[in-house]
Amino acid sequence: MPQNAQSFFNRHRETLEKAVAAIDSREYWTPYPESLKQYPEDAVKAAPQRFEALLRQPFALRKATAVAGQVGAEVSPYGFELGITYDQPEPAALIETMQAAMPAWRDAGAEARVGVCLEILARLNAMSPEIAQAVMHTSGQAPMMAFQAGGPHAQDRGLEAVAYAWQAMSRVPASAQWVKPQGKHDPLVLDKRYHIVPRGLSLVVACSTFPTWNTYPGLFASLATGNPVILKPHPGAILPVAMTARVAQEVLEEAGFDPCLVSLVPDTPEAPVAKTLALDPAVRLIDFTGSSAFGEWLECNATQAQVFTEKAGINSVIIDSVDSLKPVAQNLAFTLSLYAGQMCTTTQAIYVPRGGIETADGRLSFDEVAGALARAVEKFLADNDRACAVLGAIQSLATVERIAQCRALGEVLLDSEAREHPQFPRARVHTPLLLKVDADQKAAYSEERFGPISFIVATDDTRHSIALAREVIAEEGAITLGAYTTDEVVAAQFEELAMDIATPLSLNLDGGVFVNQSAAYSDFHATGGNPAATAALCDQAFVARRFVVVQSRRHGQAS
Amino acid sequence: MPQNAQSFFNRHRETLEKAVAAIDSREYWTPYPESLKQYPEDAVKAAPQRFEALLRQPFALRKATAVAGQVGAEVSPYGFELGITYDQPEPAALIETMQAAMPAWRDAGAEARVGVCLEILARLNAMSPEIAQAVMHTSGQAPMMAFQAGGPHAQDRGLEAVAYAWQAMSRVPASAQWVKPQGKHDPLVLDKRYHIVPRGLSLVVACSTFPTWNTYPGLFASLATGNPVILKPHPGAILPVAMTARVAQEVLEEAGFDPCLVSLVPDTPEAPVAKTLALDPAVRLIDFTGSSAFGEWLECNATQAQVFTEKAGINSVIIDSVDSLKPVAQNLAFTLSLYAGQMCTTTQAIYVPRGGIETADGRLSFDEVAGALARAVEKFLADNDRACAVLGAIQSLATVERIAQCRALGEVLLDSEAREHPQFPRARVHTPLLLKVDADQKAAYSEERFGPISFIVATDDTRHSIALAREVIAEEGAITLGAYTTDEVVAAQFEELAMDIATPLSLNLDGGVFVNQSAAYSDFHATGGNPAATAALCDQAFVARRFVVVQSRRHGQAS
Repeated sequence: MPQNAQSFFNRHRETLEKAVAAIDSREYWTPYPESLKQYPEDAVKAAPQRFEALLRQPFALRKATAVAGQVGAEVSPYGFELGITYDQPEPAALIETMQAAMPAWRDAGAEARVGVCLEILARLNAMSPEIAQAVMHTSGQAPMMAFQAGGPHAQDRGLEAVAYAWQAMSRVPASAQWVKPQGKHDPLVLDKRYHIVPRGLSLVVACSTFPTWNTYPGLFASLATGNPVILKPHPGAILPVAMTARVAQEVLEEAGFDPCLVSLVPDTPEAPVAKTLALDPAVRLIDFTGSSAFGEWLECNATQAQVFTEKAGINSVIIDSVDSLKPVAQNLAFTLSLYAGQMCTTTQAIYVPRGGIETADGRLSFDEVAGALARAVEKFLADNDRACAVLGAIQSLATVERIAQCRALGEVLLDSEAREHPQFPRARVHTPLLLKVDADQKAAYSEERFGPISFIVATDDTRHSIALAREVIAEEGAITLGAYTTDEVVAAQFEELAMDIATPLSLNLDGGVFVNQSAAYSDFHATGGNPAATAALCDQAFVARRFVVVQSRRHGQAS
Repeated sequence: MPQNAQSFFNRHRETLEKAVAAIDSREYWTPYPESLKQYPEDAVKAAPQRFEALLRQPFALRKATAVAGQVGAEVSPYGFELGITYDQPEPAALIETMQAAMPAWRDAGAEARVGVCLEILARLNAMSPEIAQAVMHTSGQAPMMAFQAGGPHAQDRGLEAVAYAWQAMSRVPASAQWVKPQGKHDPLVLDKRYHIVPRGLSLVVACSTFPTWNTYPGLFASLATGNPVILKPHPGAILPVAMTARVAQEVLEEAGFDPCLVSLVPDTPEAPVAKTLALDPAVRLIDFTGSSAFGEWLECNATQAQVFTEKAGINSVIIDSVDSLKPVAQNLAFTLSLYAGQMCTTTQAIYVPRGGIETADGRLSFDEVAGALARAVEKFLADNDRACAVLGAIQSLATVERIAQCRALGEVLLDSEAREHPQFPRARVHTPLLLKVDADQKAAYSEERFGPISFIVATDDTRHSIALAREVIAEEGAITLGAYTTDEVVAAQFEELAMDIATPLSLNLDGGVFVNQSAAYSDFHATGGNPAATAALCDQAFVARRFVVVQSRRHGQAS
């Protein structure tokens, strides 16, 4: 093993062991602090200037092969052009070069590869404040979220993938002696060796809203198991992925490997390259986060590859009964407001019985429940500075347009407002739109309306709510399911529903945890068991499919 | 958990633990003896009569749902009609019933399901002599192979799958408490539960040559992880699968589960049902052994399912140099003769340098090597009784016809002969056809010629042999690769080749182990990494994709 790779592994071995313990126990743990206070003050202060210094010029990565051209037209959702350009490698030459680099990476073994991955993650962690700037000004996330979700939480998901990969690879012994008794005769003896062999090139197609959080699991799961990785960022969020690629290339080179093992292939909306790359016979793994249409296209067409997709879904909350509505409404107000509903985990459909719900303070009508939710959002976002710090900016113009288009889909309980950002006057800041619909207006709420658009759906009763959620999620999928009840019998029905539609359940959240948050090492993000996703972040299936075991055997002498 | 399921689990717990230890250490181990002497003498003696008693009448299984009709026209390759008929369930009704039975099986938990699986395997083991009769008279395997491969070795592969499933499910804790510090404030506390949730219905499409060995891994991996299993046997080899289903249904019923959780759906060559079943949205897992054409059709079309296929390939041996040719030729003669080349692991292409090879006794010409191989087969099969006990009978008429068709593909080194079976005069017994071709006659040897048909391919040198094997296997796949060399530098090249084409390597076998044999718990059968198969028997990926994890979480109190 190259010297540096071994020293990287030794340096991070304890972190690795703790991560493996955490994915087994599912208890709280993280090596990457989520408080800015725990990062060097200088790094935090310098981050905006460091980001500024990247603008209006080319962003350089290692030039492995011929360059097809320059791309890059990122515009911050906060209202300015980044002006950064990136080399677009010529795909065929790049693929050939990456394939040539694969055997050395494979033969280096699991310790070397995992050591390199852990060092990349450590360096990414150290530059979290700077990455936060890049995430903020591509995704539109607010500063705190861009830091936490784009930095330490994304690194957590990357480390989690490395831990799963290490665990899976460690289960396969490097060698074994097989001694089969033959009665009175000498036993049959075979000396066997077992090699972890990568599937081939890995393509990670990143999204514009979580360019690091949704990219790191596939990147690190593939890289740790020996597969070279092509990062194909969303044209609107290239920079955070490019910064990641640069760190990966630095570490790979220091460890004596070809830096092309992690390569960036940016493109433009006018000339997308993802389909061409996805169908290349050399590409054997594809991770994708984004639209259902493209995800399903990959699943049906890239049959030469193992395909891991996270797509759209109808995240749902069912309200049966509550102790006190106020903390529930506050909890849901946060969920609906955070990043203006642009999380893949944000609730879209809230099922409430038409006849109202029981609370500890007596029965509340449907309109009282709906009104309390609308008022809670209103109040939560009343202070404009706080609102902007929660909502962030809308990543895509299409999402802004969708808000207007959806107004007519139901009765407006709370209208979406445009807000002026205190610091960035041209930022696209919009508050949630909350609509009231009847259960039979299924077309309205059973199609994903990406962005700050949610529906309170009036149902016959909780049984009806469960039936509707079951039907809609079976057809369209979901990544999150919330539910509220004071009745353990009903709680058991929710648990059964969650299993039947393979969606993680958050029950009675009314404190400082939200249905749209998911913690690495403990929460499985998505399940892979409903139409919203073919994979969970992160489970055994997420890594086990990325390598095969190739053995050799020859006659041996019994030892 | 139902009482019986718990007692089954307790009864077999030690076996399970030993199996888990074996798949981790890859050392020799088995709980199922492969010597008939270790089975009750009565059972061994009674087996032929018990088989006879099944003939010329309906074979009854539990009637879960409406019956569409009767099928069954099995003909023993030893020359007589079985005359057994089987109910063919009406597919839609069966699927609905199986889906309804799934939640109870899922909710019973891993111990209950694994207990049932282990009891099924134990009962199958006890009836191995009888199953051997069914395997013999459907596949055409000779009695000893039908017993070993159809009985204990098949059960080993089933138990191996259960061990992998148990290991994967055991990694997921039933519950966890997540306590996240909040500085001076109280920590956030969540109580979490994790459920193993099956993907859905599992379809196992069995083959005619190894109706139990190739069926048990998928059956038991799916069943242990909670998925109801539809067994779709080959129309020519229904009985061994039906006997298996009957045992599974008995045990399921005793444990308090719906016996339809393992259901048989037999069909006919005229009205096949596999495609219809494979595209049913309820079917989420498919295991298939058979032709590349149908396997690839499944991979491309059954995109709603996880598809595990084992298809055709060009199994290869490369001869570079040997100490002594005689034991090598004897070893290969056994490989080519066993079950008349109808194993998915039988060598088809043997690459030998045109200029001959080095041995400890000096250089041998290509013709000397080829001649030694041909003579070794001839000698091994000279005694007709022994020949018949090794060759068995040819399962399908198409294979007999293929022997004749292939004679013109090269220069005949050893012609295939029809033999008369001492006990079954109408048995289809045929010895291997061995052809000499030049490397440039690629069309001849690079297409699978299923049956006792092999090619000795004259190459420029070992480097050329390696290049050809690499090219052919990259395109067509392979399940086995053998190689012979006395030079460790060349051995390392073979090891590299094996990794590059993801094919298990057997090096310098010249004793009592053969390239076409694969031992459960130690040898990975296929890899899933080349076109011959998308799965290995058995590895982590084989089970991890059969279930998802669904969690629930709610606020808790720190304990």
